[in-house]
Amino acid sequence: MFFHVKELQYNAKPDRSDPVYAKKLQEILGGQFGEISVMMQYLFQGWNCRADQKYRDMLLDIGTEEIAHVEMLATMIAQLLDKAPIEEQEQMAKDPVIGAVMGGMNPQHAIVGGLGAKPDDSVGYPWTARYTIASGNLLADFRANLNAESQGRLQAVRLYEMTDDKGVRDMLSFLIARDTMHQNQWLAAIQELEEREGVVVPSTFNREYEKQEVSYSFMDCSKGTESQSGRWASGTSMDGKGNFEYVGEPEAMGQKPVLKPAPPYVHGTMPADGASLLEH
Amino acid sequence: MFFHVKELQYNAKPDRSDPVYAKKLQEILGGQFGEISVMMQYLFQGWNCRADQKYRDMLLDIGTEEIAHVEMLATMIAQLLDKAPIEEQEQMAKDPVIGAVMGGMNPQHAIVGGLGAKPDDSVGYPWTARYTIASGNLLADFRANLNAESQGRLQAVRLYEMTDDKGVRDMLSFLIARDTMHQNQWLAAIQELEEREGVVVPSTFNREYEKQEVSYSFMDCSKGTESQSGRWASGTSMDGKGNFEYVGEPEAMGQKPVLKPAPPYVHGTMPADGASLLEH
Amino acid sequence: MFFHVKELQYNAKPDRSDPVYAKKLQEILGGQFGEISVMMQYLFQGWNCRADQKYRDMLLDIGTEEIAHVEMLATMIAQLLDKAPIEEQEQMAKDPVIGAVMGGMNPQHAIVGGLGAKPDDSVGYPWTARYTIASGNLLADFRANLNAESQGRLQAVRLYEMTDDKGVRDMLSFLIARDTMHQNQWLAAIQELEEREGVVVPSTFNREYEKQEVSYSFMDCSKGTESQSGRWASGTSMDGKGNFEYVGEPEAMGQKPVLKPAPPYVHGTMPADGASLLEH
Amino acid sequence: MFFHVKELQYNAKPDRSDPVYAKKLQEILGGQFGEISVMMQYLFQGWNCRADQKYRDMLLDIGTEEIAHVEMLATMIAQLLDKAPIEEQEQMAKDPVIGAVMGGMNPQHAIVGGLGAKPDDSVGYPWTARYTIASGNLLADFRANLNAESQGRLQAVRLYEMTDDKGVRDMLSFLIARDTMHQNQWLAAIQELEEREGVVVPSTFNREYEKQEVSYSFMDCSKGTESQSGRWASGTSMDGKGNFEYVGEPEAMGQKPVLKPAPPYVHGTMPADGASLLEH
Amino acid sequence: MFFHVKELQYNAKPDRSDPVYAKKLQEILGGQFGEISVMMQYLFQGWNCRADQKYRDMLLDIGTEEIAHVEMLATMIAQLLDKAPIEEQEQMAKDPVIGAVMGGMNPQHAIVGGLGAKPDDSVGYPWTARYTIASGNLLADFRANLNAESQGRLQAVRLYEMTDDKGVRDMLSFLIARDTMHQNQWLAAIQELEEREGVVVPSTFNREYEKQEVSYSFMDCSKGTESQSGRWASGTSMDGKGNFEYVGEPEAMGQKPVLKPAPPYVHGTMPADGASLLEH
Amino acid sequence: MFFHVKELQYNAKPDRSDPVYAKKLQEILGGQFGEISVMMQYLFQGWNCRADQKYRDMLLDIGTEEIAHVEMLATMIAQLLDKAPIEEQEQMAKDPVIGAVMGGMNPQHAIVGGLGAKPDDSVGYPWTARYTIASGNLLADFRANLNAESQGRLQAVRLYEMTDDKGVRDMLSFLIARDTMHQNQWLAAIQELEEREGVVVPSTFNREYEKQEVSYSFMDCSKGTESQSGRWASGTSMDGKGNFEYVGEPEAMGQKPVLKPAPPYVHGTMPADGASLLEH
Repeated sequence: MFFHVKELQYNAKPDRSDPVYAKKLQEILGGQFGEISVMMQYLFQGWNCRADQKYRDMLLDIGTEEIAHVEMLATMIAQLLDKAPIEEQEQMAKDPVIGAVMGGMNPQHAIVGGLGAKPDDSVGYPWTARYTIASGNLLADFRANLNAESQGRLQAVRLYEMTDDKGVRDMLSFLIARDTMHQNQWLAAIQELEEREGVVVPSTFNREYEKQEVSYSFMDCSKGTESQSGRWASGTSMDGKGNFEYVGEPEAMGQKPVLKPAPPYVHGTMPADGASLLEH
Repeated sequence: MFFHVKELQYNAKPDRSDPVYAKKLQEILGGQFGEISVMMQYLFQGWNCRADQKYRDMLLDIGTEEIAHVEMLATMIAQLLDKAPIEEQEQMAKDPVIGAVMGGMNPQHAIVGGLGAKPDDSVGYPWTARYTIASGNLLADFRANLNAESQGRLQAVRLYEMTDDKGVRDMLSFLIARDTMHQNQWLAAIQELEEREGVVVPSTFNREYEKQEVSYSFMDCSKGTESQSGRWASGTSMDGKGNFEYVGEPEAMGQKPVLKPAPPYVHGTMPADGASLLEH
Repeated sequence: MFFHVKELQYNAKPDRSDPVYAKKLQEILGGQFGEISVMMQYLFQGWNCRADQKYRDMLLDIGTEEIAHVEMLATMIAQLLDKAPIEEQEQMAKDPVIGAVMGGMNPQHAIVGGLGAKPDDSVGYPWTARYTIASGNLLADFRANLNAESQGRLQAVRLYEMTDDKGVRDMLSFLIARDTMHQNQWLAAIQELEEREGVVVPSTFNREYEKQEVSYSFMDCSKGTESQSGRWASGTSMDGKGNFEYVGEPEAMGQKPVLKPAPPYVHGTMPADGASLLEH
Repeated sequence: MFFHVKELQYNAKPDRSDPVYAKKLQEILGGQFGEISVMMQYLFQGWNCRADQKYRDMLLDIGTEEIAHVEMLATMIAQLLDKAPIEEQEQMAKDPVIGAVMGGMNPQHAIVGGLGAKPDDSVGYPWTARYTIASGNLLADFRANLNAESQGRLQAVRLYEMTDDKGVRDMLSFLIARDTMHQNQWLAAIQELEEREGVVVPSTFNREYEKQEVSYSFMDCSKGTESQSGRWASGTSMDGKGNFEYVGEPEAMGQKPVLKPAPPYVHGTMPADGASLLEH
Repeated sequence: MFFHVKELQYNAKPDRSDPVYAKKLQEILGGQFGEISVMMQYLFQGWNCRADQKYRDMLLDIGTEEIAHVEMLATMIAQLLDKAPIEEQEQMAKDPVIGAVMGGMNPQHAIVGGLGAKPDDSVGYPWTARYTIASGNLLADFRANLNAESQGRLQAVRLYEMTDDKGVRDMLSFLIARDTMHQNQWLAAIQELEEREGVVVPSTFNREYEKQEVSYSFMDCSKGTESQSGRWASGTSMDGKGNFEYVGEPEAMGQKPVLKPAPPYVHGTMPADGASLLEH
Repeated sequence: MFFHVKELQYNAKPDRSDPVYAKKLQEILGGQFGEISVMMQYLFQGWNCRADQKYRDMLLDIGTEEIAHVEMLATMIAQLLDKAPIEEQEQMAKDPVIGAVMGGMNPQHAIVGGLGAKPDDSVGYPWTARYTIASGNLLADFRANLNAESQGRLQAVRLYEMTDDKGVRDMLSFLIARDTMHQNQWLAAIQELEEREGVVVPSTFNREYEKQEVSYSFMDCSKGTESQSGRWASGTSMDGKGNFEYVGEPEAMGQKPVLKPAPPYVHGTMPADGASLLEH
């Protein structure tokens, strides 16, 4: 169960309204790697957690914090939209400053949201649950989380560079710091699990059932050999169980596929010479 | 530019048709972490690559290999659908075996695809480009790739357990082995980049601009202290630049937000006592 | 069955072309609460109607009228796009008026639609059937309809404020008036059904099967007691069957959830100390 | 900012696992009118609220409660999936009970989620933010909320009828009771606002600017006159400002639209006889 | 403007209810090539039509007819859902016939739709406007229409084979016949336009501006020469303006791309040796 | 299996960066009829092909070529984004040229993609697999392909008109020429199949099972008789098996639908006078 306090986790007060920037800031609210994504991802990973209680607890700790980040961003965006000049189209087009604002503003901020934040990204695409994953395998999922925090901090940093509003930058300096922590956090949790289970997910699958001849081959399917100089093409593999091998001219090992004609009730195209072969 | 050879990278021949399993196998073809996702993700990361040529080359190597994996899965699914019994609904409902098949088959495999594979997942949801990321920051993106290969191998393993068809298992044993390689590959590439840049993405943002007081604090926003026992709550941080601190009772540091009334032309709800305050 | 006459239900003639406004106007054509949404919602509610014929007839009356509204908006948008200046990018960027137009225009209006309306909203997101509902319970659905007409009129009014084109305003004055009627209409129909069935949907569920202790409690899960002063926190409930009760400190009444470890074939993360407990 | 306690708001413990029912129950978790929808809708309405503080506070009270409902449903679904028999496809198809389970289960519950809940609906479609609205006009939005709670209670009741699991029914009896409260709550809040502002949204638009001739006309665009007998076709209008009028044979009042040929750079089809007319 | 009559264009009465088939039939109602798609596509093509009035009129004729087809299918599906056995899950699982029904039914037909049709396809995916096109170039669009009617008739025929319900087959025999007409109709309209404009869309682009060396080359990018024996690899081109040429070993004609490093404010990965080269 | 060479199929080098045009060019990369669509459509049609090997081979030839087109466009877009001026918002708003750029640029190109191409269209909507079709009936699918190449060439031509960058135009001149070839190619393949099978898809359905009375009737459901003058309204039908007939006043041939009340467990609205009639 959840409880709310009125104060924000950190300040979210812009110096001035800026509807064009409000549109951009939506990316880290409702985008692919925005705060809604990590909030939902961590909460579902926590609720579904069948492993040690410390992981469940930790996931709910951070998932709950992320709701507060969503709140900060929504609050910031609403203020950036204050008094957005949505009237008088024609006049605006003549004033380059206002014209640029009009062109760059998300029209739904005015028409749909009445100057409020939306659970959408910076092009107005709505947040979708397909951005998230909770697989039941924590090592896999913590890698998803590390990725989300890496992309998220990268985007927050880019947005920091796109404004000189001190209030916005103050809020972003907090979110960026939390992303620093969260990258560190997932790295720590991953290290724990990798020490326990090994680095290949899932660790519980019997390796005899995989085709081990190709488990450590780097296959160069693209002309040029620059890729041969990477760590992935030679030396001990990262799981310590093999040696990377560089395969410069990988060959096809499978069949040349020929599909049977479709049964007549499918009304697909039959081969010109194939009707008589049809088993039905 | 690309070229194709007729042979598959590896065998994709089932022992028998199995339309219910065909539906499930769609997950690793057109699902969130299926082969289309990694194919498109690696190709776009490669095409957009502004870093060392060895990364660009490597990304195109593996991206090109993934097209072959998409091809194998599509070929397998088409064969699993051979002679799917789509006729005579009523009679089937009376035969439990066929009835289960009917109930469990993806109806679009028959109606739309004419017994062919679709670029969709196991519930019929179409593949979407929002599954992929190419950010221009390779460390961030390689974490995305490591995650994709971890989720992908996990799903392939689960699908391996759901069938006893030797042909299907043979193909999966190859894909699972390649996922072993690809997890190792991204781990190796990540190690290279982390050694060069440090572990926090992006490494080029001036740390003075982030609110460093909270860069290493684990905030426990959920009752219970189980999470305190994790690696993330004490000791040196993973980036080596701080110490993890456990904050058992995190406090709100921000304002209690009060938004201004909306301007009249928005026709939002005005506060009962606020009309006179409105600056317009 | 349906028939069409060439004349529009009302005038849809702008004074001048205005491609930026055309983009905005798409919101009430193909947006969440646009005319396509109400058209499809009313028609499906009508076609699926299992209740009194007068409701079915009324739903098809208004659903059919809404097709005419879609037609008016599409016609208007096509005219607003007349002669949109899509050529000569560079020169435009130098002319602030044209530059603002270029920046603010929906590029698909030119590239995809050839200066025609699209079944999309003001950020270019395509209309989706998930905007609509036809539940078979008319009281529930008429509330959906009342909401749609409320949001729709609000958006039309906002769009009215964003232009001074007399032709556009003339058309909007008609649509706004129809929305006035349609809000009145659904309020009337709701009143009829509430009098017949009561206000809680669905009325036919045996109230003994619901946990009546909490059927009239306002639970304050957020700090601050401002919400206590609302009508919802005291007095007779709106259905007349209880009294609103304000619960200032709601307590958790449920279990502390602990999920069982996953079976091995799922390859999820097992608790460090839990493997031996596993029933399989 | 938000905090979490470990206990659920109410019990969420099924008597036995039931993966087919788990799939269905997803509807009120991640469906169009599921708990994620109301949670996000109320939180965003609260965060964006520019009206009286009591509304903001109330919205955050209930939005915060809804997070707890999401938690209960996710927890329930994970337990319903306990030990789902995902192995050994062929054998299952022969056992009608297990076969029905296999056919009816959401394959992603096993393959993607590892026996955990997903933020999707009962057909596996992911939750999308386009299900929600926060318009800044509270009367409009409270009608959306009333609708959501009406559809939500209807769906919960239908799901109640589809199971005889006592644990599931116990949880649903709580959620149904809360939906009773929430319908009452929005009805109360709506009544307050309607008394203050009138029933037509938005109340602040100057009625002289709408085409009042058609503001109270019921237009019968569909053959048959059953609809004439409804409250909406005669008597005083619900806003008390007009009289409903029944228009049996509504007539087109607009122009017969003729669009200009497209400019040549659009490469649309030109009228056969129209090239010479083209102004360019 | 539009009008409705109560009678359906043709009979839509099943012999018996069949909820599994109802799910499948959704494909041609709300699927990619279902009746909603053609209805919306033809209406928007008509409303946006800037060419000869006979095309506009014809598009609205057929678009209006398609609304009637949507109506027939919705009506049929609602009846196929009559008395769907949604109760008593456990007992059903034990009865193979009912179990198959349960497994195969769309759960939203019961939970969301209350035994009504939905604007979705056979896997429950909602209809989306991105299925449609109205480009302003009629020859292009009529090819889209011909495709839609071809795919649509194919799907209707497959659905015909999947049932032996005489009522359903009667309705499908009508829709299939109309699809015969509509394929003929678009073929006729295409012939008219091709005679007027030539076969390559758009006909108005100056051919000197295209790279004519490759305008008639069939490039064989895939091993094997089977494709050489097709009409497309030799002889006069279909537009009569060139000769098909078979290129067995196509060569790359473009540059080897090297992208510049990103500017620092993007925080992308810099080449290891490239920092000094950066122009900023 | 697939292989890659570093050189592009043709040049993709702009004269200068142009982030606004980059946004527009996304349409033919990741839009409904962009290169990703044809790439995926042709590859899946090839992989699923159950007809003559020459069709399978040809589909993979062209599908493989299309991957190279995706590569060219991605490369071009990345270069158009070089040094996009994403900083210093305020100053830009004051400079009309830069302001127009800012307003017109896709914000995700900077925030998400780090100045790289995205698999999205010109309004930022992600590519979705529902754009493609592979039905198993090649005549149907080749019509889809002809449509895709027609819409695609039309869009490329429109984009050609929107720039005067010689490098961009050079690349487009190549893509436009290939679209000329591909339209010719599908026309040739369609001609082959139509000669073999007839023009109505599918050709294998027994025509006695369709309602032949309406197989050649043009039904005029829209007032006005302009449509009567088209080729589709008189003369021999295109399949040579009937005569087009113009039906000026089409009549409803079906029943007036009345649906049964829903069973009580659905909790739909019952007719006021219908409860007693209910069979349950």
